[in-house]
Amino acid sequence: MVCVLLRAQPCRVCLVIALEWRAGSRRWNLLLDSLMFSGNKLWGGRFVGSTDPIMEKFNASIGYDRRLWDADIRGSKAYVKALQKAELVSKEEMELIIQGLDTIAAEWAAGAFEIKPSDEDIHTANERRLKELIGVASGKLHTGRSRNDQVVTDMRLWLRDAISTLKGDIMQLISTMVERAAVEIDVLFPGYTHMQRAQPIRWSHWILSYTVALSRDTERLEEIHKRVNVLPLGSGAIAGNPFSIDRELLRRELSFDDISINSMDATGQRDFVAEFLFWASLCLTHLSRMSEDLVLYSTKEFSFVSISDAYSTGSSLMPQKKNADSLELIRSKAGRVFGRCAGFLMTLKGLPSTYNKDLQEDKEAMFDCYDTVHAILQVATGVMSTLSINPKVMEGALSSDMLATDLAYYLVRKGVPFREAHSCSGKAVSLAESKNIPLNQLTMDDLHNTSPLFDSDVSAVWNYTNSVEQYNTPGGTSKSSVTAQVQQLREWLKAHKN
Amino acid sequence: MVCVLLRAQPCRVCLVIALEWRAGSRRWNLLLDSLMFSGNKLWGGRFVGSTDPIMEKFNASIGYDRRLWDADIRGSKAYVKALQKAELVSKEEMELIIQGLDTIAAEWAAGAFEIKPSDEDIHTANERRLKELIGVASGKLHTGRSRNDQVVTDMRLWLRDAISTLKGDIMQLISTMVERAAVEIDVLFPGYTHMQRAQPIRWSHWILSYTVALSRDTERLEEIHKRVNVLPLGSGAIAGNPFSIDRELLRRELSFDDISINSMDATGQRDFVAEFLFWASLCLTHLSRMSEDLVLYSTKEFSFVSISDAYSTGSSLMPQKKNADSLELIRSKAGRVFGRCAGFLMTLKGLPSTYNKDLQEDKEAMFDCYDTVHAILQVATGVMSTLSINPKVMEGALSSDMLATDLAYYLVRKGVPFREAHSCSGKAVSLAESKNIPLNQLTMDDLHNTSPLFDSDVSAVWNYTNSVEQYNTPGGTSKSSVTAQVQQLREWLKAHKN
Amino acid sequence: MVCVLLRAQPCRVCLVIALEWRAGSRRWNLLLDSLMFSGNKLWGGRFVGSTDPIMEKFNASIGYDRRLWDADIRGSKAYVKALQKAELVSKEEMELIIQGLDTIAAEWAAGAFEIKPSDEDIHTANERRLKELIGVASGKLHTGRSRNDQVVTDMRLWLRDAISTLKGDIMQLISTMVERAAVEIDVLFPGYTHMQRAQPIRWSHWILSYTVALSRDTERLEEIHKRVNVLPLGSGAIAGNPFSIDRELLRRELSFDDISINSMDATGQRDFVAEFLFWASLCLTHLSRMSEDLVLYSTKEFSFVSISDAYSTGSSLMPQKKNADSLELIRSKAGRVFGRCAGFLMTLKGLPSTYNKDLQEDKEAMFDCYDTVHAILQVATGVMSTLSINPKVMEGALSSDMLATDLAYYLVRKGVPFREAHSCSGKAVSLAESKNIPLNQLTMDDLHNTSPLFDSDVSAVWNYTNSVEQYNTPGGTSKSSVTAQVQQLREWLKAHKN
Amino acid sequence: MVCVLLRAQPCRVCLVIALEWRAGSRRWNLLLDSLMFSGNKLWGGRFVGSTDPIMEKFNASIGYDRRLWDADIRGSKAYVKALQKAELVSKEEMELIIQGLDTIAAEWAAGAFEIKPSDEDIHTANERRLKELIGVASGKLHTGRSRNDQVVTDMRLWLRDAISTLKGDIMQLISTMVERAAVEIDVLFPGYTHMQRAQPIRWSHWILSYTVALSRDTERLEEIHKRVNVLPLGSGAIAGNPFSIDRELLRRELSFDDISINSMDATGQRDFVAEFLFWASLCLTHLSRMSEDLVLYSTKEFSFVSISDAYSTGSSLMPQKKNADSLELIRSKAGRVFGRCAGFLMTLKGLPSTYNKDLQEDKEAMFDCYDTVHAILQVATGVMSTLSINPKVMEGALSSDMLATDLAYYLVRKGVPFREAHSCSGKAVSLAESKNIPLNQLTMDDLHNTSPLFDSDVSAVWNYTNSVEQYNTPGGTSKSSVTAQVQQLREWLKAHKN
Repeated sequence: MVCVLLRAQPCRVCLVIALEWRAGSRRWNLLLDSLMFSGNKLWGGRFVGSTDPIMEKFNASIGYDRRLWDADIRGSKAYVKALQKAELVSKEEMELIIQGLDTIAAEWAAGAFEIKPSDEDIHTANERRLKELIGVASGKLHTGRSRNDQVVTDMRLWLRDAISTLKGDIMQLISTMVERAAVEIDVLFPGYTHMQRAQPIRWSHWILSYTVALSRDTERLEEIHKRVNVLPLGSGAIAGNPFSIDRELLRRELSFDDISINSMDATGQRDFVAEFLFWASLCLTHLSRMSEDLVLYSTKEFSFVSISDAYSTGSSLMPQKKNADSLELIRSKAGRVFGRCAGFLMTLKGLPSTYNKDLQEDKEAMFDCYDTVHAILQVATGVMSTLSINPKVMEGALSSDMLATDLAYYLVRKGVPFREAHSCSGKAVSLAESKNIPLNQLTMDDLHNTSPLFDSDVSAVWNYTNSVEQYNTPGGTSKSSVTAQVQQLREWLKAHKN
Repeated sequence: MVCVLLRAQPCRVCLVIALEWRAGSRRWNLLLDSLMFSGNKLWGGRFVGSTDPIMEKFNASIGYDRRLWDADIRGSKAYVKALQKAELVSKEEMELIIQGLDTIAAEWAAGAFEIKPSDEDIHTANERRLKELIGVASGKLHTGRSRNDQVVTDMRLWLRDAISTLKGDIMQLISTMVERAAVEIDVLFPGYTHMQRAQPIRWSHWILSYTVALSRDTERLEEIHKRVNVLPLGSGAIAGNPFSIDRELLRRELSFDDISINSMDATGQRDFVAEFLFWASLCLTHLSRMSEDLVLYSTKEFSFVSISDAYSTGSSLMPQKKNADSLELIRSKAGRVFGRCAGFLMTLKGLPSTYNKDLQEDKEAMFDCYDTVHAILQVATGVMSTLSINPKVMEGALSSDMLATDLAYYLVRKGVPFREAHSCSGKAVSLAESKNIPLNQLTMDDLHNTSPLFDSDVSAVWNYTNSVEQYNTPGGTSKSSVTAQVQQLREWLKAHKN
Repeated sequence: MVCVLLRAQPCRVCLVIALEWRAGSRRWNLLLDSLMFSGNKLWGGRFVGSTDPIMEKFNASIGYDRRLWDADIRGSKAYVKALQKAELVSKEEMELIIQGLDTIAAEWAAGAFEIKPSDEDIHTANERRLKELIGVASGKLHTGRSRNDQVVTDMRLWLRDAISTLKGDIMQLISTMVERAAVEIDVLFPGYTHMQRAQPIRWSHWILSYTVALSRDTERLEEIHKRVNVLPLGSGAIAGNPFSIDRELLRRELSFDDISINSMDATGQRDFVAEFLFWASLCLTHLSRMSEDLVLYSTKEFSFVSISDAYSTGSSLMPQKKNADSLELIRSKAGRVFGRCAGFLMTLKGLPSTYNKDLQEDKEAMFDCYDTVHAILQVATGVMSTLSINPKVMEGALSSDMLATDLAYYLVRKGVPFREAHSCSGKAVSLAESKNIPLNQLTMDDLHNTSPLFDSDVSAVWNYTNSVEQYNTPGGTSKSSVTAQVQQLREWLKAHKN
Repeated sequence: MVCVLLRAQPCRVCLVIALEWRAGSRRWNLLLDSLMFSGNKLWGGRFVGSTDPIMEKFNASIGYDRRLWDADIRGSKAYVKALQKAELVSKEEMELIIQGLDTIAAEWAAGAFEIKPSDEDIHTANERRLKELIGVASGKLHTGRSRNDQVVTDMRLWLRDAISTLKGDIMQLISTMVERAAVEIDVLFPGYTHMQRAQPIRWSHWILSYTVALSRDTERLEEIHKRVNVLPLGSGAIAGNPFSIDRELLRRELSFDDISINSMDATGQRDFVAEFLFWASLCLTHLSRMSEDLVLYSTKEFSFVSISDAYSTGSSLMPQKKNADSLELIRSKAGRVFGRCAGFLMTLKGLPSTYNKDLQEDKEAMFDCYDTVHAILQVATGVMSTLSINPKVMEGALSSDMLATDLAYYLVRKGVPFREAHSCSGKAVSLAESKNIPLNQLTMDDLHNTSPLFDSDVSAVWNYTNSVEQYNTPGGTSKSSVTAQVQQLREWLKAHKN
C-alpha cells in the first residue's frame, strides 16, 4: 500500500491518498482520498482523518470468521422462526427471510458469495446480502438480537461440529493403535525409565500406554462438548431479550442441550473456547511424547521402528538421509497449540465483564487449534498404521542386567526382605561389571557370595518371557494383562462410539 | 555457603572443603571434605568429586514434598495389607509395619518428625524412620513397589482431598453471591459493554453472571476429581506388579473410584496435575475479571461499591488513600497460576515416555496453585460478603441515552423493521446531542421528525424499571428472570453439595 | 476433500481415491489414485499408501514462507557469486543464474509467479523455476548449501528488514506522543495508584510515562537487530561448507554485520526469533496498559478523553453507543503475540540439537508477530494523534483530599518528622470525612486540633498548580521537569534516527 | 489454623476466634479475637469483621521479600544522605539513622533480626526496627519517599548483584566447555539432523555449538544489567520528589549508571523483571536442548558419554540402573522458569498504569528464576567437567553412508552440477541398500553405473578424517576451524571478564 500525504501547511489542510496495488486486476485501487483539516493536531502522527484504512483492516474479522457462514445462517433461520412465533415478523416475512438465507447458504457452498469491502464480519456480510436479495423485510431479522449473542451462537454451533469431527479422528487413532497392539502382542523390547533400559516389556504395552491417554482425551472432549452445546441466543447485547422470544424453541431448532442461565455470562465469557484450546494442548502434549519416543526408536542407534516413506522426507544435501518429519511436526504442534491457549488466557485476564472487542481473539485461536489437531490426528493415524517394527532388534536390545530386579525378586520369594534382596542383586550387578561379563554369566559361586539363598533354579530368572509374564496384575505387561487392556479399550470404543 | 578448593597442581590432587553457615546454631557446618584426584580433567570446571552438594540440594524434594506425609503413610498402610494378602509379609509383620507407620504419622502431626540430611524425599524419609522404629521388617514394605507408582499414588490422594476443600471454598463463594443477589435484587445500575454504558440492568444480574461462571468451574472440578481418583499403585516402576498383588483391595482401602489401566501410563503421565493447573487458571481468570470490575466500580469516578476496611489498605505516603488491595491480589493471581500451568506443560512437551525426573516439577506447581486458589476463594468470599454498595449513585448513573434501544423497540412494536427503528433512534440521539439535552427531553416534534410513528405513549419508554422489566426471557435482567436465576442456582447448590 | 477407500478384502488390495473440490474451476481434482496392497496392516488406520495428501499439506510451508521470496533470491544471488569465486561455477554460469533469479524476482514482484503443487517451500519453488528458466546450470546453485543454512539466512534477511520497519513505526509513535505532551503540558488531572486518586499530575506526565517505556522497547529492538544481522550462510546442513567458500564475501554481499561462529549453532538455534517474539510481547504489554488507561479515561464516568471516530465503532443494537474498539484491539494483542512466544519456546524446549522439522514453527510466529505489531503501532499512532481531551473535566476531577500528602509536607517543612506529619494529615482527612466536607474546608481550629503548627499560610496548600510544581526533581511532574523529559526524548529521537 | 465463629443470632453479634498452632513453641497463637456486629450481611459469607487473617497473610510479602534486607538498608542509607543535603534531616539525625540502619543490617547478617507479626514487608520491618532503635528521628527517613519507589530501588539493587553472580556462573560454564573442546578436539562422532546420522563431525564442534549459544546469553545478560542499573529512587508514589532531593547524589551513592526519566514509569513498570525472566527462559531452553542430547548420548543405545556418579542416581526398584537425573532436572527447569515469565507477563497485561498491588508478583518470580538458574549453571558446569566420553564407540558409530554427500562432492569436483551429483550418490546409496552392503563396499563397476566419472581415487572419500577436514571455512568442523572457534571464544571470555 502506498500512502501519500500532501500537506498545505499554511492553511492546515491535508490531502491524503492511499493506494493499494491489486496484482489480480493489475491496477491501483483507491482506498482513501480525503481532504482534511489537520486542525490543531500539532503533534503530527501517522494519520488524521475520518477513517483509517489500517484500523479498518485491523478491525475486520471477515478474513477468518467467514468460516462461520453456515453456523450464522442456521442461527438466523432459527431466530426468524422465534420472531415469527413472537409475532414480530409475519409468516410471509419469515418465509421470505428463510428463502433468502437459503440462497446465501447456497452461494457460500458454491464458492460464489462475493465479499464486499464494507463486510467487516460474517454477520454484516450475510445481513447485507439478505437485504440485497429480499429488501426491507431483512431489517426485521436483527430484532432483539445483538452481534454479541449472535457471534457466540455461531461459534458454539461451529465448535460443536468441529468437536464431533475431532472425536471421530481420535477414535480412529485409538482404534488403529488398539488393533496394532493386539496383533503385535508377542513382541518384547526394553522398557525405559529416565531413557535408561529398565525392564523388558511388551511393545503392545507401550502402544497401549498412549492409547489410554488418548481415551482420557476423548472423555475430556465429550465433557467440553456438553458445555459447548448450550444456547446463548436470546441474550441480546447484555440484558437479555425484550420480546419474550421463545428460547426453548431456539434450543430445539438448533439442537442445543441447554439454555444459558445469565445473559451477561452468555455474551461475555469464552470458557468453552479456553477449555477447547487447553484440551488441544494436553492432547498434543501426549502425542508430542509419543512422537519423541518414535523419533528415538527410529534412530540408527535404536533401529526399533521404521517410519513409512509416506511420512518421511529426504534431505536437500545428504542423499542417504530419511527423516521422520511427520513425527517432528506432530511433536512441534503441542507448542503451537498451547501458545494459542496461553495467548487467549492472557487476553482474557483482567478483562472487564461482558463483551469487549478483545474477545475477537477467540476465533483465530479456535480455528487454528482445530485445523492443527484435525491434521495431526490423521497424520498420527497414518504413521501408526504404516510404521514397521524390527522385532529382532527390539528383542536383541534386551540384556540380562535388565533382570536385576527379577534376581532380587528371586530372593524375595525365598523370604528375603526386598531392601536386602535389592542390595544383594546390586552386588551381583557390580560383580558382573567388574568382571566385564553379562549378569547372567555369573557363576553360582559368584551369586552365593552375594546371597547364600541362590540356588540352581536361579537360571529360570534369565528368561525375558518369564520376566514379563510375572506382571499379570491389572495394568501389567504380561500377555494376559495386555490382552485384558486391549479388550477393555475395545469395549470403551464401542461405548463411546456416539 | 563457602567452597574452598586447594589445588596441589604438580600431583593433581585437590582438597575441596564446602562450608555452610548455620545461623541457628551459629557455627560452620562441614558439607564436604574430600581429597580428590582431578585426573585428566584439564578443562577445570566448578567441581570435581564424588558428590556435589549443589546437585544434592537441587535433586532433593523433601523441602516441599513433605506435605505428602499423610498420603504417603496411608498409601503404605494399604500396600502392606495387600502384601500380606499376597503372603509376602506375615500378619505379624504387617501389624508391626502398620504400628510403625502410625507412629510416624503421629510424629508428623505433632510437628516432631525430624528430617535427616539423607532424606531426599518424603518416601525415603518415612522409610528411613520406619527402619529406625521397627528394624528389618521395614525392608519388606517396598516389595514390588517403586517410587514411580508410590509418588503418583501420594499425589492423587493429596490432590483428591485438596479438590474437596476447594469445592467447599467455591461453593461458599457461590452461595454468598447468590444470597447477596437475592437480597439486592431491586438495585439498578448501568450495564456496560466495551466499558461504555449500554443498558440498565440489575446489580444482581451482574453478581449472578460471575456466579454462573463459578458454577461451571465447580462442575469442571468435579470432573477432574473423577479422573484424579484413580489408583495407580501396583504399577511398579514401569512394567506392573509381579506379585499378583490385589489392586482391587488397594482401591477399596484407599477409596479410589477406579484402577489405572496401563502401568506405563499410570507412572509416566501427569494429566491430572495439568488439568488441575488449568482448572485453577480458568477459575482465577473469572475472578480476575470480577475483580477488575470491582476495582473500577470502587474508583471515585464510579463510586458504585466500597470495599470493606478488612480488605483494603492505606498508603505509606498519601494519608487520604484507601486501596482495594484484595481485589488487585485476586486479579494478579490468574497470571501466577497460569504461569504454573504453562511451565508444567512446557516441561511435559516432548518428554520420553514413563518416569523421567522432569516430572518432579509437578509437586510445587500443584501445591502453589492449591494454596493460591484456596486463599483467593476465601478472600473473594470475604470481599463479596462485606463490600457495601451505593444504590443511589448506581441508579443516578443511569441516563436516558441508555434507553435509545428502547426507543427503537417502541417503533419495532409499531411494526417498523428493527434496522429502520435503530436508524430513527440514532437520529434522535444525534439530535439530542446537537441540542445538548438528554434524550428524554426531546419534544414530540423532535421525535416526529425522526419517525411519524412516535406518539405521546413514548413517555413510558423513559423509565428504567420498565426497561429492565422487558427482559423477562430466561437469562434476562427483569426481576422475574433474575429471581429464576437465583432459584436455579440455589437448586444447583443443593444438587452439588456432596 | 473426499476420500474413498475401496477394499477388496480377500486379496488385500485397496483402491484409494482422494478427490478435492476446486470451487474456482468448479471441478473435482484427483489428489490421489493408487492401488495398494494393504499387506498385513491388519490394524487398519486412516491411510495406507505411498503418499498421504494430508501429510503433504501439513508438511508444506509454501503457504506462508512465500513471503521470503525476496530474501531467498538475494541469498541465492550472493551464494552464486561465492561459488564463482571458489570456481565451482564459471562466470557465464554465474551470470546465467543471476539473470534467472532476477526473472523470478520480477515474477514474484508482479504477482505472476505460479506455485506448483510440488513446491513444498519457497526454496524448492525458486529452484524449480530456475531450472525451468535456465536448465541444467541451475543444478550448481545448491553446491555445498543446504536448506538448513538457506532457510535461516532467508529468515534473518527478512527479519532484519522487518525490524527496520518496526523501528520506524515505533519512533513515529514516540515522536507523536512527545510532541503531544509538549503541546498539552499545562493540563492537570488526577494521578492514580491502585486506580484510586492519588496526587495531581500533568497529563503530559502520563503520556511521557508510556513514551519512556516505548523508548526502551526501541533500544531493545536495536539490540535484537544486532543479533539478527549475522550471516549463517556457509554452514551447510550441520558440518559447515566444504568448498572453502568465502563467507566474508557473502557477508558483504548481504550486508550482514557478522559471521556465525559455529555451523551447528547457526543452523539449529532460533534465538533471534524467540527474542523477537518476546520483544513484541513486552512492547504490546506496554501498549495494553496504555490502552487500558485510555479505555477507562474514555468511559462516561471519567470522560477525560474522547477517541476519534476513525478509531471507534457503533453498536449493532444500541444506537447511542460509541465503542473504543481500537483500544480494545490493541489491548488484546499482547495476549496473541505472547501466545506465539510461549508456543515457540515450548516447541524449542528439549529439542535435540541442529535442525529438526519442529523449527518450521518459527516462520508463522515471526510473520504474525510482525504483522500484528506493525498494524498496532500504526493504529496506536493514529489513536494518539487524534484523540481529544477534556481539560475541564480532567481538572474538575482534582479534589482537595488529593492534597493530603501536601498537607503533611507543610508540616514536614516546619520540622515535623514525616511519619508524624502523615498521621496528623490522616486525622485531618478523617475529620473532614466525618464532617462530610472537602479537606480544604476545614477551619483553622479543626487543623489546629490535628497539629498546632498549622497557620494561615496553609491556604497555599490548596492549590493544584502549587502542588505539581513541587515535583521539580528529575522525573517529576512539575512543568520544568516535564519539559526536560520532552527535551530528553527529542534528543533521544534524534540520536536513534538510524 | 482453626477459626471458630460463635454467632449469637438474635442480636447479630459474632465472636470470631482464629487460632494457629505453632509447632516450634508448641502452643496456640491467637490470631484474631473480635466481637463483631454482623449487621445486615444477610448473605452470610466466610468472614465478617475488621480484619481477615487470611487476607493479612495473603497480603504480606515479608515471607519472601526479606531477601531484600540488604538492598533496603543500602537504599535507606543513601536516601538519608540526600535528605540531609536537602536539609530535611540534620547531620546528627542522619548519623543516628545510619547507625541504626547499620545495626539492623548486622542483625539480619547474624540471623538475629526478629520479624514481628505486623511486619507486612521488608520496608515496614526495617522501619519498625529503626524506630525501636533510635526513636522519633526514624520518622524522617520516609520523607518524600514512597514504598513505590523504595521497593523498586531495592529490587534493582538486588537484581544487579544477582546478575553479576549469574554472569560469573555462566562464564565458568563457558570456560569449562571451551577448554574441554580444546582438549578433546580429535574425537569424531556422528552429527545428527532430525536425529538421523548426517555427517561426521568433531565432538568439540558439538560442545562449541552450545558454548556459542551461551555466549549470546551472556551478552544479553549484560544488556539487561544495563537496563536494571537505573535509579528509580526519588520518584515518590507517582508524581516525583517534592523536596528537590539530589537524585545524582543518590545515583552515585548506590552506583547506578543512570537516573529514571519519568516517575510514573519508574514506579509502575517492571520491564527489567520481565526481561530477566525471559532471559532465564531462553538460557535454560538452550540447556534443555543440550541436556536432551546428553540424555540420548548416555543411553545404552548410543553409549557416547557417561555422566559421573556425582550427577546420577540409582533406582529404588532396579539395582542395575543409573539415571542421569542431573540432566533431566536441567531439562525440566526451562519449563519452570518460562512459566514464571508467562505468569508475570499475564499479570502485567492490561494493568492500569502506575503501582497496583498486582506488581507484588514480581518478587517471587525473580527470586525463583535466579535460584533456579544459579543452581542449574553450577550443576551444568559440574556435569560438563566430569562426564566421560567413549571415543571408540563414538567413532565406531560413523558409517560410510554418512559420506554419501562426500561421494556427491567427488562428482561436483569433477564438474557435475550438485543436483545431478546428489542424484548419482542417491542411486549408489540405493544400490548398496539393495545389495545389503555398506556404501563403501560398492565395486567400481557399481559406481560406474551411477556415474562414469567415478575413478579409483574415489577411495579417498571413504575416510572420516578427510571428510571433516573439508569443512575448513569459518564455523566448520575441520580441526583448523574448530581451533579457531576455541580461540575466538577464549578471547571473548577475556573481553567479557568484567
